[in-house]
Amino acid sequence: MRTRNPLVAPELREMLASGDSQALRHFCESVHPASAAELVSALSGEEAWGVLRHTDMSLRAEIFSHLDRDFQVEIIEILHRGAIARLLAEMSADDRADLFKHLPEELRESVLPAMAHVEREDIRRLVAYEEGTAGAVMTSDYATLSPELTASQAIEHLREVAPDAETIYYAYVIDGQRRLLGFVSLKDLILARRGARISDIMHGEAIFARVQDDQEDAARKIRKYDLIALPVVNDDDVLMGIITHDDAMDIITQEHTEDMEKFMAIAGSHEDAVYMRSSAWRHFKNRSIWVFVLALFGLVSGYIIQSFEGMLLQLVILTTFIPMLADTGGNTGSQSATLVVRALALKEVSPRDFRRVLAKEFQVAILLALMLGVVAFGRVLLFGAGSTVPEGVSLGMIAMAVSVALGVQVVVATLVGALMPLLVSKLNRDPAVIASPALTTIVDITGLLIFFATVKLMLGI
Amino acid sequence: MRTRNPLVAPELREMLASGDSQALRHFCESVHPASAAELVSALSGEEAWGVLRHTDMSLRAEIFSHLDRDFQVEIIEILHRGAIARLLAEMSADDRADLFKHLPEELRESVLPAMAHVEREDIRRLVAYEEGTAGAVMTSDYATLSPELTASQAIEHLREVAPDAETIYYAYVIDGQRRLLGFVSLKDLILARRGARISDIMHGEAIFARVQDDQEDAARKIRKYDLIALPVVNDDDVLMGIITHDDAMDIITQEHTEDMEKFMAIAGSHEDAVYMRSSAWRHFKNRSIWVFVLALFGLVSGYIIQSFEGMLLQLVILTTFIPMLADTGGNTGSQSATLVVRALALKEVSPRDFRRVLAKEFQVAILLALMLGVVAFGRVLLFGAGSTVPEGVSLGMIAMAVSVALGVQVVVATLVGALMPLLVSKLNRDPAVIASPALTTIVDITGLLIFFATVKLMLGI
Repeated sequence: MRTRNPLVAPELREMLASGDSQALRHFCESVHPASAAELVSALSGEEAWGVLRHTDMSLRAEIFSHLDRDFQVEIIEILHRGAIARLLAEMSADDRADLFKHLPEELRESVLPAMAHVEREDIRRLVAYEEGTAGAVMTSDYATLSPELTASQAIEHLREVAPDAETIYYAYVIDGQRRLLGFVSLKDLILARRGARISDIMHGEAIFARVQDDQEDAARKIRKYDLIALPVVNDDDVLMGIITHDDAMDIITQEHTEDMEKFMAIAGSHEDAVYMRSSAWRHFKNRSIWVFVLALFGLVSGYIIQSFEGMLLQLVILTTFIPMLADTGGNTGSQSATLVVRALALKEVSPRDFRRVLAKEFQVAILLALMLGVVAFGRVLLFGAGSTVPEGVSLGMIAMAVSVALGVQVVVATLVGALMPLLVSKLNRDPAVIASPALTTIVDITGLLIFFATVKLMLGI
Repeated sequence: MRTRNPLVAPELREMLASGDSQALRHFCESVHPASAAELVSALSGEEAWGVLRHTDMSLRAEIFSHLDRDFQVEIIEILHRGAIARLLAEMSADDRADLFKHLPEELRESVLPAMAHVEREDIRRLVAYEEGTAGAVMTSDYATLSPELTASQAIEHLREVAPDAETIYYAYVIDGQRRLLGFVSLKDLILARRGARISDIMHGEAIFARVQDDQEDAARKIRKYDLIALPVVNDDDVLMGIITHDDAMDIITQEHTEDMEKFMAIAGSHEDAVYMRSSAWRHFKNRSIWVFVLALFGLVSGYIIQSFEGMLLQLVILTTFIPMLADTGGNTGSQSATLVVRALALKEVSPRDFRRVLAKEFQVAILLALMLGVVAFGRVLLFGAGSTVPEGVSLGMIAMAVSVALGVQVVVATLVGALMPLLVSKLNRDPAVIASPALTTIVDITGLLIFFATVKLMLGI
């Protein structure tokens, strides 16, 4: 992600202007690549590359990998074919494939022929997986071992592959067809007798993801089992790649942002839209869809009010309760929806728990309804004193009707809020699509109907 | 977290009933400890312990550590002092301290004397840190090296401490006063010449947390720098503990849930409240506070409507726009608040970007206002046809006034939504406390005021 750091940018610009390549190299080497990336992000694409150019290829690629993707593309577009190919060659397999996917079509086609055969094939293989799957986020830079090796041979092998592997702390044991047999950790290898066979010390438990699995499920496995990396296999159990713990953390964070945005009725995927780098027009597009649809739905509540114009004319005081009724329904409904959406996301409940969740929400709703009913009753008595009421209707009766309506509305809104994510989840869709604003609009409609029906029934107007 | 798995629980109960200790031991050993924990969570505390009893101490403690904390406490309460002390002794330092903190007072006091001196002191030290700080989540099971060692001596040392350390993939280099000098990874050690000095190969960059730092900031460093563990030091730079990548992932997930719940006006910390295990009464307490406060605030909107009773009596059609006005303001305000809250959480923007964020939101708001103004205009013309209007006022004028009011309201709501999290963040508080329902209630009030003022001004009623 790109944050401006106003303190370092001018100094870097000065070094660039004076062509002080030693100072620039020293800058790149003296801070962590993630920090260097953050600092050069304050510069233009051309300037940033001007800084990175002064360090060696491998560090350059590492800093570059920490830039946010839009900025990476911006830089790539000012480089020539050969430089792009060399940079991509140095990047880790997953970062490279991810960047490649987001390059403009013509650039992709011109760069591929400039790359070595192995890397070209590696990119082709990785970009083939659908966005959002485990295959699309895995890397092919992993270490494998054959089961016949001894512990000391395995350590020797890991030492050799270490410079190219994303991690050597887990090594995957495969057979002649590259089918996954298990894994050993470097800790296991160090603790084992030098002559111990890999097949004897490896963990054979099947914790893995399939290439087509949801990336979030894969990340969740890494979290659940406290893994450093998770192997990803195809349908024939052939090892295709690994997902590392740091990528899992990024996936979890990104999915959370997307869930929250979805839940607040904002379209678009967060990955493509870092806040400040998105244009106002893009923000508008992401936000306007739902707002527009919900405004149209607002027609329904308007229509309901219009149909009860006569009642409102007789008893204008009723109008003053409409906002409280709408808000309270929206609030209680959104609360239960939030809790159920998160509980589903964390696998604390599953759609199978349908009845238990509804039973729990019903109890909570009754308590909330009682509390809010009392508030509404008091409110009518306190503030309705000056109002004109039609003959045969007392303020106490109005207070009773408003309380009952609010209570019923709270129960309905809470249950609807809990029910909708459960239903969506049952259909194997992400429960966060139950946007809180949509829910609010729905319970507005139920609220008005409940309100007018209750008043009609209890006051006979 | 506790999920029921209806398939295994009956089998486990059968094994328990028949006292088949071999089968029970085999169950514990054949699945991953995290899976075993998930499966025994379907049982009662007594049954779960009955299963765990059959495996060796170390695996038992590991499975136990994977249970959710309420269930751990439930089990602890049925054990006798000695068994508790033995179990705690086997647990990792951070899990143990975390559980200890949540035991009932009298149990804590009776268990401590039964423990060995070292562990007792370790617990005392770790529980002293305030909840939510890096100190409270760190573990004291880490590996240290002295800078004079050679790479091969260091590997030998790590081999010795491996069984007790949470990770040996990072080892921390300290001086005679235990001050942090840097770290080496096991990969560095394996790649180094056998005789290379630790002081020459260690990374001296200062990436660490202080004990009093927010746990979320520490977790964010682990994510940013792709670390396996982060050292935690006190104000004298003395190494006090480490936070591992798997704990960082749990912290991030937990903070996500808390942020979302806070944002949706739900009180309480998520850690204490796994959805299904919380009683309806506890849910009610967490949810009712805000709902109650907001219902009281609803009095203000009621009061505003009451003050304009005369206007509404003359032009009942105005009433039908109140829900749309309130909802649209709430929706657009919540959207901008959501985006700013997330962008702040991800450090994409900082409170210093105040003006740039407001400028961006203003542009988006103008676009949304134009779109929604047109919708409102059309709506009045389409649906207002049958309504009675006072003399001198045309339907077109009403449509114009409603459109302008809605447009102004959208701009105000969007800016308020963006402004509030920025202000809260400037005060160094968590921006997620700007709850979306609170925002909705606030913009309801601005919306009504804007609406009535616009109508008064444009229609002169």
